[in-house]
Amino acid sequence: MAKSLESEHPIKAYGYAAHDTSGKFSPITFSRRATGEGRERREVQSSLLRNLSFRSSLCQERMGGHNLPRYPRVQTYGVQNYDGTQVYGGYSDHMISDEHFVLRWPEKLPLDSGAPLLCAGITTYSPLRYFGLDKPGTKVGVVGLGGLGHVAVKMAKAFGAEVTVFSTTAAKKVEALEGLKADHFIISKDEEQMKAAMGTLDGIIDTVSGNHPILGLLGTLKPNGKLVVVGAPEKPHEVAAFSLIFGRKTVAGSAIGGLKETQEMLDFAAEHGITADVEVIPIDYVNTAIERLLKSDVRYRFVIDVANSLKAE
Amino acid sequence: MAKSLESEHPIKAYGYAAHDTSGKFSPITFSRRATGEGRERREVQSSLLRNLSFRSSLCQERMGGHNLPRYPRVQTYGVQNYDGTQVYGGYSDHMISDEHFVLRWPEKLPLDSGAPLLCAGITTYSPLRYFGLDKPGTKVGVVGLGGLGHVAVKMAKAFGAEVTVFSTTAAKKVEALEGLKADHFIISKDEEQMKAAMGTLDGIIDTVSGNHPILGLLGTLKPNGKLVVVGAPEKPHEVAAFSLIFGRKTVAGSAIGGLKETQEMLDFAAEHGITADVEVIPIDYVNTAIERLLKSDVRYRFVIDVANSLKAE
Repeated sequence: MAKSLESEHPIKAYGYAAHDTSGKFSPITFSRRATGEGRERREVQSSLLRNLSFRSSLCQERMGGHNLPRYPRVQTYGVQNYDGTQVYGGYSDHMISDEHFVLRWPEKLPLDSGAPLLCAGITTYSPLRYFGLDKPGTKVGVVGLGGLGHVAVKMAKAFGAEVTVFSTTAAKKVEALEGLKADHFIISKDEEQMKAAMGTLDGIIDTVSGNHPILGLLGTLKPNGKLVVVGAPEKPHEVAAFSLIFGRKTVAGSAIGGLKETQEMLDFAAEHGITADVEVIPIDYVNTAIERLLKSDVRYRFVIDVANSLKAE
Repeated sequence: MAKSLESEHPIKAYGYAAHDTSGKFSPITFSRRATGEGRERREVQSSLLRNLSFRSSLCQERMGGHNLPRYPRVQTYGVQNYDGTQVYGGYSDHMISDEHFVLRWPEKLPLDSGAPLLCAGITTYSPLRYFGLDKPGTKVGVVGLGGLGHVAVKMAKAFGAEVTVFSTTAAKKVEALEGLKADHFIISKDEEQMKAAMGTLDGIIDTVSGNHPILGLLGTLKPNGKLVVVGAPEKPHEVAAFSLIFGRKTVAGSAIGGLKETQEMLDFAAEHGITADVEVIPIDYVNTAIERLLKSDVRYRFVIDVANSLKAE
């Protein structure tokens, strides 16, 4: 059944896809369904969606439809569409989307370094706003200085916060303080430094996906402080009840955000000159990029220039 | 030094105290310091403070000064006062307190069944208010039906919430639904019942002090739902990041509340006829009461009638 429906799809498309669980990408020709009546749009990659950030599996999860769904959720790849045909992802020359899921790209925002904001930008902007950490003078911690963390610092600074970066890597100090203009830098494994920061922060955005203890981080919060995890370690966090009870502290989670807030974030980023630090790659580099990503060898996001590299093939 | 200062204390007092780590209480005569200038009050137990609830060590912690301290915190027993002398606790015929820490007792509120509200009442009222679970129609879960839990149900019902009680004890169903007028009752170990409740609650007050899993409870929350722990299990809670990230859920803690909010709670309780279920005991019963408490053999709070039982001695 899936096959016969797909053969009726009118839009021929070309792109890259992983065909099996090896995770290796190779070229593919396929078809996209027609646009529906009124509410759907066909986007050619040379325009709005030319640049797609290379995202971890978590971010792919995040990007599949809303954080708090009002619409039935369909992932952007690896699943079946409403009509039973395969969903092919976004590494291709055409995409079809309900117009509700299409954003207006601000003129001032570069497409390449702006693209990862659709993951890292909204993932950090949304909790800063929702948990009231968006006021000038707010004392905000950011744990981890990777793809999410470096954008979190930029967002928090743009809100006027006083930002403390927590990292296990002493070498990131210069980058945090000089590159990203953070106000403080703490080696989270250094007990003296952690002790000195006790009770100083209004909130923390924890971007780390590796297993790590959060008890010490909770200690750096003021009363009513909020630790928001946006990274998802494999092992559950251990949270001692007393570390929350005294000081009415919060551990919360946050994924991306709704479309309205994502648009607001893009406009905010354009206004404040916030972009991600990226390395732009052609699409046939994607397998090497994955290998490098697994070794954390990227600073901080790969962005695939889909249109230009498909044109060249 | 402590001795000489104490010998100058002018107020002779009589009460019960634990003299060593055995935890056995016996009669004691001692002295209380004088009231200070203007801001301190001497209270005779036959009036406001006649009834003191018998509290667990956690609640004793909670009662020592504020949740979110504006004042330097001095515990009510087992520590030294500002002047270096011993603090003697409240099981006695006199107490001295800064007037800031004295509450106005509503006329309509019984002293005996009202007394535990200073622990169980404010501990449950405060998070219901702070986390926005105080609106009519809000769907609130209460985990555990003990000293804190039964008051949590009464408070939530008084706010107009639709209340679901979670318990591991099937026998508590009648009490929850008929006695306390809860709307739903769920055996938290019953997977079918937990599954049926998925995504239904705005917030949960978790009063359980024994070790227990909270993953299933997080599953019963709606997006933006809040699980507030007021019980403190020995083992840390295990919180999987994904269980918070999808749905922007929160695990928070809460202790008692400030004095202003405690007064507000007492007035609210008086207005809505909320009291704790208590067993009033004379002070010489306190050692037996502790033994029974350790076996959970009380429904739900012991209250010591200090004044009457000291008068009789």
